[in-house]
Amino acid sequence: MNGNGPSRLVDPLEDPLPGVGTYEDFNTIDWVREKSKDRDRHREITNKSRQSTMALLRRISDAFSGWLLMLLVGLMAGAVAGGIDISAHWMTDMKGGVCLQGFWFNHEHCCWLSNETTFQERDRCPQWKSWAELITGTSEGAFAYVVNYMMYIFWALIFSFLAVILVRAFAPYACGSGIPEIKTILSGFIIRGYLGKWTLIIKTITLVLAVSSGLSLGKEGPLVHVACCCANILCHLFTKYCKNESKRREVSRVYFLYLCVHLSLLQVSYYFPLKTLWRSFFAALVAAFTLRSINPFGNSRLVLFYVEFHTPWHLIELAPFILLGIFGGLWGALFIKANIAWCRKRKTTRLGHYPIIEVLVVAMLTAVLAYPNSYTRMSGSELISELFNDCSMLDSSQLCSYKQQANMSEPGVDNSLAGPGLHTALWQLALALVFKMMITVITFGMKVPSGLFIPSMAVGAIAGRLLGIGMEQLAHHNRDSVIFKGWCSAEAECIMPGLYAMVGAAACLGGVTRMTVSLVVIMFELTGGLEYIVPLMAATMTSKWVADAFGREGIYEAHIRLNGYPFLEPKEEFEHSSLAVDVMRPRRNDPALAVLTQEGMTVGEVESTHYSGFPVVVSSESQRLVGFVLRRDLLISIDNARKRQDGIVSASQVLFTEHAPSLPDAPPPLRLRCIMDLSPFTVTDHTPMDITVDIFRKLGLRQCLVTHNGRLLGIITKKDILKHMAQMANRDPDSILFN
Amino acid sequence: MNGNGPSRLVDPLEDPLPGVGTYEDFNTIDWVREKSKDRDRHREITNKSRQSTMALLRRISDAFSGWLLMLLVGLMAGAVAGGIDISAHWMTDMKGGVCLQGFWFNHEHCCWLSNETTFQERDRCPQWKSWAELITGTSEGAFAYVVNYMMYIFWALIFSFLAVILVRAFAPYACGSGIPEIKTILSGFIIRGYLGKWTLIIKTITLVLAVSSGLSLGKEGPLVHVACCCANILCHLFTKYCKNESKRREVSRVYFLYLCVHLSLLQVSYYFPLKTLWRSFFAALVAAFTLRSINPFGNSRLVLFYVEFHTPWHLIELAPFILLGIFGGLWGALFIKANIAWCRKRKTTRLGHYPIIEVLVVAMLTAVLAYPNSYTRMSGSELISELFNDCSMLDSSQLCSYKQQANMSEPGVDNSLAGPGLHTALWQLALALVFKMMITVITFGMKVPSGLFIPSMAVGAIAGRLLGIGMEQLAHHNRDSVIFKGWCSAEAECIMPGLYAMVGAAACLGGVTRMTVSLVVIMFELTGGLEYIVPLMAATMTSKWVADAFGREGIYEAHIRLNGYPFLEPKEEFEHSSLAVDVMRPRRNDPALAVLTQEGMTVGEVESTHYSGFPVVVSSESQRLVGFVLRRDLLISIDNARKRQDGIVSASQVLFTEHAPSLPDAPPPLRLRCIMDLSPFTVTDHTPMDITVDIFRKLGLRQCLVTHNGRLLGIITKKDILKHMAQMANRDPDSILFN
Repeated sequence: MNGNGPSRLVDPLEDPLPGVGTYEDFNTIDWVREKSKDRDRHREITNKSRQSTMALLRRISDAFSGWLLMLLVGLMAGAVAGGIDISAHWMTDMKGGVCLQGFWFNHEHCCWLSNETTFQERDRCPQWKSWAELITGTSEGAFAYVVNYMMYIFWALIFSFLAVILVRAFAPYACGSGIPEIKTILSGFIIRGYLGKWTLIIKTITLVLAVSSGLSLGKEGPLVHVACCCANILCHLFTKYCKNESKRREVSRVYFLYLCVHLSLLQVSYYFPLKTLWRSFFAALVAAFTLRSINPFGNSRLVLFYVEFHTPWHLIELAPFILLGIFGGLWGALFIKANIAWCRKRKTTRLGHYPIIEVLVVAMLTAVLAYPNSYTRMSGSELISELFNDCSMLDSSQLCSYKQQANMSEPGVDNSLAGPGLHTALWQLALALVFKMMITVITFGMKVPSGLFIPSMAVGAIAGRLLGIGMEQLAHHNRDSVIFKGWCSAEAECIMPGLYAMVGAAACLGGVTRMTVSLVVIMFELTGGLEYIVPLMAATMTSKWVADAFGREGIYEAHIRLNGYPFLEPKEEFEHSSLAVDVMRPRRNDPALAVLTQEGMTVGEVESTHYSGFPVVVSSESQRLVGFVLRRDLLISIDNARKRQDGIVSASQVLFTEHAPSLPDAPPPLRLRCIMDLSPFTVTDHTPMDITVDIFRKLGLRQCLVTHNGRLLGIITKKDILKHMAQMANRDPDSILFN
Repeated sequence: MNGNGPSRLVDPLEDPLPGVGTYEDFNTIDWVREKSKDRDRHREITNKSRQSTMALLRRISDAFSGWLLMLLVGLMAGAVAGGIDISAHWMTDMKGGVCLQGFWFNHEHCCWLSNETTFQERDRCPQWKSWAELITGTSEGAFAYVVNYMMYIFWALIFSFLAVILVRAFAPYACGSGIPEIKTILSGFIIRGYLGKWTLIIKTITLVLAVSSGLSLGKEGPLVHVACCCANILCHLFTKYCKNESKRREVSRVYFLYLCVHLSLLQVSYYFPLKTLWRSFFAALVAAFTLRSINPFGNSRLVLFYVEFHTPWHLIELAPFILLGIFGGLWGALFIKANIAWCRKRKTTRLGHYPIIEVLVVAMLTAVLAYPNSYTRMSGSELISELFNDCSMLDSSQLCSYKQQANMSEPGVDNSLAGPGLHTALWQLALALVFKMMITVITFGMKVPSGLFIPSMAVGAIAGRLLGIGMEQLAHHNRDSVIFKGWCSAEAECIMPGLYAMVGAAACLGGVTRMTVSLVVIMFELTGGLEYIVPLMAATMTSKWVADAFGREGIYEAHIRLNGYPFLEPKEEFEHSSLAVDVMRPRRNDPALAVLTQEGMTVGEVESTHYSGFPVVVSSESQRLVGFVLRRDLLISIDNARKRQDGIVSASQVLFTEHAPSLPDAPPPLRLRCIMDLSPFTVTDHTPMDITVDIFRKLGLRQCLVTHNGRLLGIITKKDILKHMAQMANRDPDSILFN
């Protein structure tokens, strides 16, 4: 084995050294290299398949393994999501009481089992006991109220404490929504363990706890992280995927699962082939179906909120819709600014040292303030459902307590005058709006799993519903004015407050996340018709424009920047006139670029270098570029050669040339052409930076060399570009932390 | 003016020479250059806007001009589409008869105006006279039938003759569907006049004529071409768009208008920013709304066919759905092969010399064979609507003539046994299937505007409906068998033949065009629910796999290749192991690459060159690359210099350097650094071709230079790559015709 060392090193493609071609933690992968590797593999299998039936079978199984993997990912992610749904539902209800038939039933299931209740009274069934009833024996009176209140706070504290403790102890990566990190990982960054099994287990458990604790957070974002963990773990079953970083990322694009099925059509990244899109769509669908069949008490639909409106909207209503868009945009911009300021404070001051106390204080505050108001006491998704729904005749909700005329079933009678119940509801909603807006800012970013979709949508839905009811009353009182006369006849309902709630939710979600088109498509799926796409478009476009006026970043991009991840935003255009020569290293007055020459350097000289990668040139005088080699690969190879190959000492020559005479009296040379990248990317020094940024973005480069008239001049890495962009935007260039 | 000639030439950015930076017909544009130009423009406006209010206003209007343009495009395209719809409807009806109240009413409108008719008899109203009634006075009997038959053929011949004559005489580019050419144009190819006003006018008129003549063609594809013409023409209103080839292409991406609204989410091209997607979505929506408000008799929906199904599908039904997928795939592959063979024959044999006779013969054949069968006599979209619909109790269609039990309104009674009417319908449908399959092959590609969506969908819908009815009868007769027992109870309809028709249509459309995901999204829009996405996905995926086994190209790609357009398919992966050095020119034994040196060449030498572009090197010995210059720009600049600048003769030196001493006794030198591209793209000779193809595709390059150890070695153009790919696939490399 030791004897034929040199010949082994000459053709390492057949059996590459372990470690060569891998990456360190917190580094960026080279997409071109990874893709190339995969193509080589594919080519080899295709060629072999012509030789034997066995190899042909292997080729076929290889081709289908992608689909099989996606099926498994879909099944697993759907199952986990279903489990989270059921558990969170049960534990949320547990804060209010317990089922006598069995503590493992949630409220709805418990009451559904006891057949005595009618449709109207489903909320109150004898089997379900509130904590006050269990403890004091009665559910009436101030004392019972206080007992229930206390139990609510008690459970909220227990759940949130467990959540933060588990995250701290076992999987620090399980906190937050995970979407900023996943965006960065998908763009090629490496964070070991971020999509691992511990993160999956702990995130699943703590997500249930965090949601149940009543904190103002949603579970959609973390579910995406959970699904990505499933994808990454299942990758290990298939050799094709476990060895290739870019292939694994393709699988992790199941990213937009569940709620995000349709986002998948839009989150267009340059690195991924179209096939990936189609596969992730398939996986998301499988997951949605799995979820549906697991959760028999959930709604039997594949969308989050399903509403049907029966009244068309009128052109004049565009004015309030655009108002909602402005509100959404302002709220989005304000939220991002406030949340980032708060998170930065947490990072830089002593506040960050007490995450457990922080979570407990916020949970306490949330529980104390939320309980008295029925709209904040219910969970976020219940609230949104209620706000989206339009009132029908039989609706017992407070939001639908209009003054009823004598003969309520007669269609000609007008029922849209607000009653006292509705007035109370309006006050409660207004308070809920203020509360949700405040508490969400300090909740998002704490050390528990937390999503942002539901809280943002809730804020928008409340604002929209308020405006909708306002418009309705305005129309009622001015039925004969010029504006309302044509379309608000006495017979028909002319304004649907539910539609306003939906438009408001879309506007706020758009303001916070800035994913306008996608959003419209999602929301339009929700309504199940193209009829309401114009209101949604008007509101989300306004919201985006307004929010963009205060800063172009969405909340996820802002968090990426806060954490200093190396992420090249695909949307942002580079609009400055700098050239490659202005960005490259070495700067004008710095020492020359560290290069290796293709012959004449010794092992000792090579080992004593410091940078993470080196261009290889013909000679120091000509500076003509031959290739590029990574320090990590260099060191691994030298190390290996010292162990296996006789006579490799510090004085041995390192050769990157194809053929070189080995001098008779010198130690045997070390040939390393095989680990050199023979096709490094180059641009000329006069290349405008906008083109360079485009190249980095579209090809997924890690570094690029700069030449002038054919001579090597410098190097530009992804980090250099991000630093330059930060500088151009008057931000601190040192905020970019990783490679 | 003449005196300061040289200084003018030094900074041509301020006032570029007319012609420099433009392209010749049938050439490919350089995306990087065009994008760069637009960014420069944008930067200039932004900088100026800080100086004065006027300039700020100009900046704002510049920013909004994109949206305004899209609004106008939407309005215009929608209006044209509406006009085409109305005219085609009227003229199609005219083949059958005329309205007495006014010849300009179509059948439906005519009968709608005469209030006497009931719902059942709307087809027969006294105001509408068939030609037999007008000429012979009676609508009964064999003679009247023959008269109607003859008039039908007569009008078909008149319409098709007019269509082909108009296309031949005024706008040869108006024929075909236009989608292959538009795909190529959007990828950067230049065909002058293809999106011009004459093409628009003639295509609009001849499309109406072609559709009305009863030929087996649809209008969706040509409508896309018409919309692109609108976009291109309206571009001239805005300076931002009329000067920049890549900006104009952005606008023309309204490409997928109307039917293709949702395709827009998927036809992801690398060159276009995300903003374009969102804008074209907006334009498509405007167009759809315009179309709807123009065409009051059309359906008031935004999708082509709207159907609602009320019965869920059963897992066992996946088997027939997959069968439909196999049928769709086979038919798609067969259709492409047959159609391309026929089109190649037309191109290479004498058949191509008589396009008018060809159209007349096919129109005659179509009319003669189509009239006797009611399913081929009706238009393609009517046929599809009828096949998609499920039978309700009141349906008078032949497809719904089931044997009715005594008490038909009672829900418990089974009505799914086929009656004699249905048996006739089955025979007619089977004949229609064979006829449509045959005639579409020879129709698509004739010198009239012709789309393929409707004919493909019709074939699939017929096949699907036939299979659906077959399944229904099978279920009826085997109600108690193991398979059907669980879900086909006697009370409910268990199989919906309409759903089968829809699945079949999706499978065939997928087999022919290969746009699977997009297709599922469209079709799923049609049904308005996620419930039926699984059958559609199963069928279209099967169809794609089956069709791909016979050849990976869709019909549009096949036509692009047939015509030799330079189009780099974004889907196709390059899977061979060749290197850049194998593809570049000059080949191994060819003479060296023609280069210019940066100094030392004379005007005369430069003018006597032949290639369309030249690398500029430091010196012939070093071969170190400085830049790249296009022959067209060179000649224009020299020409201009001879006219304006004194002393430029053939012996004058051409200088590409920044500073060079002008020799005292020589004629003044011509400085041309300003027209040189200082940042040409380079790859090394060892770069694998798969990476090179990726670079060309993602950056939209026109050419790329090849270096070895810093010395210039050769050049690779888009045409070289396409030729190489053709060679690798064992096709004729000379089939690539253009640059």
